[in-house]
Amino acid sequence: MSADIRINAERLWDSLMQMAKIGATPKGGVKRLTLTELDRQGRELFVSWCKDAGLAVSVDGVGNIFARRNGRAAGAAPVVSGSHLDTQPSGGRFDGCYGVMAALEVARSLNDRGIETELPFEVAMWTNEEGSRFLPVMGASGAFAGVHTVEEVLSGRDVDGIAFGDALRAIGYAGAAPVGGRPLAAYFEAHIEQGPILENTGNTVGVVTGALGQRWFEVTVGGMDAHAGPTPMHLRRDALLGASFLIQEVNRLGKATEHARGTVGMIANRPNSRNVVPGETVFSVDFRDTDVAGLDRMEQGLREASARIATEQRLDIGVRQTIFFPPCHFDQACVAAVRAGAARLGYRHMDIVSGAGHDAVYIARVAPTAMIFVPCEGGISHNEIENAKPEDLAAGCNVLLQAVLAKAGASSFL
Amino acid sequence: MSADIRINAERLWDSLMQMAKIGATPKGGVKRLTLTELDRQGRELFVSWCKDAGLAVSVDGVGNIFARRNGRAAGAAPVVSGSHLDTQPSGGRFDGCYGVMAALEVARSLNDRGIETELPFEVAMWTNEEGSRFLPVMGASGAFAGVHTVEEVLSGRDVDGIAFGDALRAIGYAGAAPVGGRPLAAYFEAHIEQGPILENTGNTVGVVTGALGQRWFEVTVGGMDAHAGPTPMHLRRDALLGASFLIQEVNRLGKATEHARGTVGMIANRPNSRNVVPGETVFSVDFRDTDVAGLDRMEQGLREASARIATEQRLDIGVRQTIFFPPCHFDQACVAAVRAGAARLGYRHMDIVSGAGHDAVYIARVAPTAMIFVPCEGGISHNEIENAKPEDLAAGCNVLLQAVLAKAGASSFL
Repeated sequence: MSADIRINAERLWDSLMQMAKIGATPKGGVKRLTLTELDRQGRELFVSWCKDAGLAVSVDGVGNIFARRNGRAAGAAPVVSGSHLDTQPSGGRFDGCYGVMAALEVARSLNDRGIETELPFEVAMWTNEEGSRFLPVMGASGAFAGVHTVEEVLSGRDVDGIAFGDALRAIGYAGAAPVGGRPLAAYFEAHIEQGPILENTGNTVGVVTGALGQRWFEVTVGGMDAHAGPTPMHLRRDALLGASFLIQEVNRLGKATEHARGTVGMIANRPNSRNVVPGETVFSVDFRDTDVAGLDRMEQGLREASARIATEQRLDIGVRQTIFFPPCHFDQACVAAVRAGAARLGYRHMDIVSGAGHDAVYIARVAPTAMIFVPCEGGISHNEIENAKPEDLAAGCNVLLQAVLAKAGASSFL
Repeated sequence: MSADIRINAERLWDSLMQMAKIGATPKGGVKRLTLTELDRQGRELFVSWCKDAGLAVSVDGVGNIFARRNGRAAGAAPVVSGSHLDTQPSGGRFDGCYGVMAALEVARSLNDRGIETELPFEVAMWTNEEGSRFLPVMGASGAFAGVHTVEEVLSGRDVDGIAFGDALRAIGYAGAAPVGGRPLAAYFEAHIEQGPILENTGNTVGVVTGALGQRWFEVTVGGMDAHAGPTPMHLRRDALLGASFLIQEVNRLGKATEHARGTVGMIANRPNSRNVVPGETVFSVDFRDTDVAGLDRMEQGLREASARIATEQRLDIGVRQTIFFPPCHFDQACVAAVRAGAARLGYRHMDIVSGAGHDAVYIARVAPTAMIFVPCEGGISHNEIENAKPEDLAAGCNVLLQAVLAKAGASSFL
């Protein structure tokens, strides 16, 4: 019975901790920006482990790495699992790395048991998920899925003017394999939740059913600079005051449904002097929801409130959309495989929607896909203090193994 | 009758326009920072005009310039009028310069008519009113009034580390006269309003009865950084959202009385990233009112609202006072002299309270003082587009002449 199979939790944890040494920060986090020398070191370690596990390593034209374990049906489309090894500038030990190490641990555990799957199984490492150094974010999985062209990805430049393509060649990972264009039987990605829901509800495993759609806006509030002393209140056109009403409106709109979010994260105020009534305030709006209709309602609410506040406060308010990601719904059969695996192993689990973007969101456009979330401490991520429990990480990896076996088939074992 | 005397409006305007050439900016403003080469040029031009008018020029130890026209009572305390010649980095043609040129024009007009006053009359130019290059703001009139020591003023340093005292010597204006410590019979300062009240009410002259007291605070709102996607609304501790409630509260408190003001001019948000719930937001609060009780009520309102919002939004909010200027009430007899002058000349006038600080606010601590305001276009100041009408500037100068004559006495003429 596949329920008897468990991954090696200690080996998984050790691999995570060894990889975390590459780019380790004094505060216990990791800074391993994409296509840097540290990224190269991380890739080398990963590839050496893959080869030790007898996997066949290939690299594509945007630096994505695939480590293949053959199945009985040699030419069949593989089941793939992975994530990314690059981090934020002040990142943690688990974001991305966990998904790669969990997939590698699945291959190692299959080896331990001598299990031959029907379909091939591949461990994937996607280049530049974070988008911290090069845009677009999730560019290499996006190229694999045909969202971006290879040329778009290779021509992106960092703040020093270095092109993605040049940096990729410099670390020796401009591979020969074509980017995408081949069928995957299924794709699974294990990841820390990066939010507090699993921890708050006491669940060990999140069965990720999809990802929130996103609409971002830039709102510009125009008033009139004026001296704070000589200018009576009733004659002011205070841009920051106008922005304060809209910040609360965005928060209110974000509470419309269970999965909705409304966030003002960035604000820029001019002239931003203590004794001058602000003449211009610009801020960002990040709306997320599970369906486009919800995003549309939030946009409409923002535009109506902007018009109302512009009139009431005698301000000029402009609302401009900057980003749109449609909502993503994962493959029902893949999601069911994850859910069944968690249930079979007796883990407390719940359906959950990813609030953040992941490589899986792009891969879902070209392959049946699902994700597995595990709790992270305090829901904190993109932070050096990011933390997760070894037993939760092992649980997620065990569920991943179950899902892979369900999709790849292991008749010789089952 | 003194009502027959008029200043020379054309000469006043010409002097203003000639002085505005020193440090003129492409946008029509003036950048003449204190104790720079341009300040030296402005001082040289002013001193040459004073000497042409037969005035005796002296300079004190912080660079304040006094140009004296003797009266019949040779040893008596003088009536003094003036302002400053330094500007903001993107300043206008009238802020400060008008008060110095108006006082000079009074001396010139007295000369034209051969009027001998009972008391001496002095034209004053105070160093570094703006505080743009060196702190403290209004440092040299403050030293004259004993608010600051001479050493405090001389030891102030600009962003390049240059000391006020060294810069003063470098332009040749470290004078021998003692700083303050001598009686003034009265002090008058003419100034553009720097606010919109006179223009909005159709008045030509503002009879300034005093200046608003000021209490400034720095408010720090502490929440928790969190990913905008994965973090549900009800689990957030959003510092910027908390700040938005307090910004509105400061505005509400600023409407408590006719003269009250409440302004949030500066805001700093961290990490200020579009998809991160803000973890810390710091903002300034500038409260002004005519009496300390009003300032106290606003402070209490701010502290109560901070405590309430901290509880409601699960935030940590700290409120720290950074500046306190007590309210200033000008001398009733000097104010009456200004009001009587405006009435005698038939100018539409109103009592007004200065919202901003001026050298007169410090001089009022050691001498009977009043100010005269004239309208500026749109209430705009500290801006290169600052503008004022020649006829309004002439009106204010005529009122100044009336007030000076009332205080200095001109029996030979009257």
